Amino acid sequence: MKKLFGSPGKVSGLALRIGQCCFAAAAIGVMLSAHGFFNATAFCYLIASMGLQVVWSFGLACLDLHALRSKRSLQNPILVSLFVVGDWVTSTLSLAAACSSAGVTVLYSKDLNYCRPMNLPCSKFQIAVAFAFISWFLLAVSSIVMFRLLGAV
Amino acid sequence: MKKLFGSPGKVSGLALRIGQCCFAAAAIGVMLSAHGFFNATAFCYLIASMGLQVVWSFGLACLDLHALRSKRSLQNPILVSLFVVGDWVTSTLSLAAACSSAGVTVLYSKDLNYCRPMNLPCSKFQIAVAFAFISWFLLAVSSIVMFRLLGAV
Repeated sequence: MKKLFGSPGKVSGLALRIGQCCFAAAAIGVMLSAHGFFNATAFCYLIASMGLQVVWSFGLACLDLHALRSKRSLQNPILVSLFVVGDWVTSTLSLAAACSSAGVTVLYSKDLNYCRPMNLPCSKFQIAVAFAFISWFLLAVSSIVMFRLLGAV
Repeated sequence: MKKLFGSPGKVSGLALRIGQCCFAAAAIGVMLSAHGFFNATAFCYLIASMGLQVVWSFGLACLDLHALRSKRSLQNPILVSLFVVGDWVTSTLSLAAACSSAGVTVLYSKDLNYCRPMNLPCSKFQIAVAFAFISWFLLAVSSIVMFRLLGAV
């Protein structure tokens, strides 16, 4: 049984999950506080996708915490396969959401120069997108660790 | 030595590479033929990313063809590791490009309704994005096969 950095039932794994959850929640919070976000489909999709990531990461963080407290191993093939599929689906959706929002944000702020004249909170959009990318990056680390674990269990 | 569907040096692998290359080239062609694409950073990024994918997939298609004709095996650990890293980097960039372009296209055609009044060729943007997604999907299949091969070699 391999003990990789960030594997489930380890402190590093728990830290990764909490980080994903917090950054995704921060992205939702910042986006919701920016007025006019609902005019762009990409921003609504960002909120939905980050919501899914919060639920997924929070669930796995609870599972990690339980495993740490009861000193149980979570590394059985069925559980790890479930984690791999869930992680890959969630991280693909998160990357898609972060990129589509980034495309729209760059269009607003650089290409069309709409921020000032249309009174759009572009800096908030940028912060939300940055949080979404950080959250995706942490999830991608978890996904790669899970994929490597799947070969080891 | 595993012989998975789509592994390098097999006809299915060659077909996947040719498909990736053709759809990426088609995405570039359609996007270049749509006037006004250079106003959006996301569309320029799509062209750059699809260009990278054409080069990568074309190179690997040539390598597959060579391996098929000379009946050599391409499955040594160093080559497969190189393919895995290249495939994952290219597919992440392609997904990012396809999603950011999709975000901008949806913004133009649905959210802002700019297609008619600004005389934008939105249907061409949509076709280019669709081709980019198909190309990314084929590349994702190759990436997963390579990752599985890496565990096997």
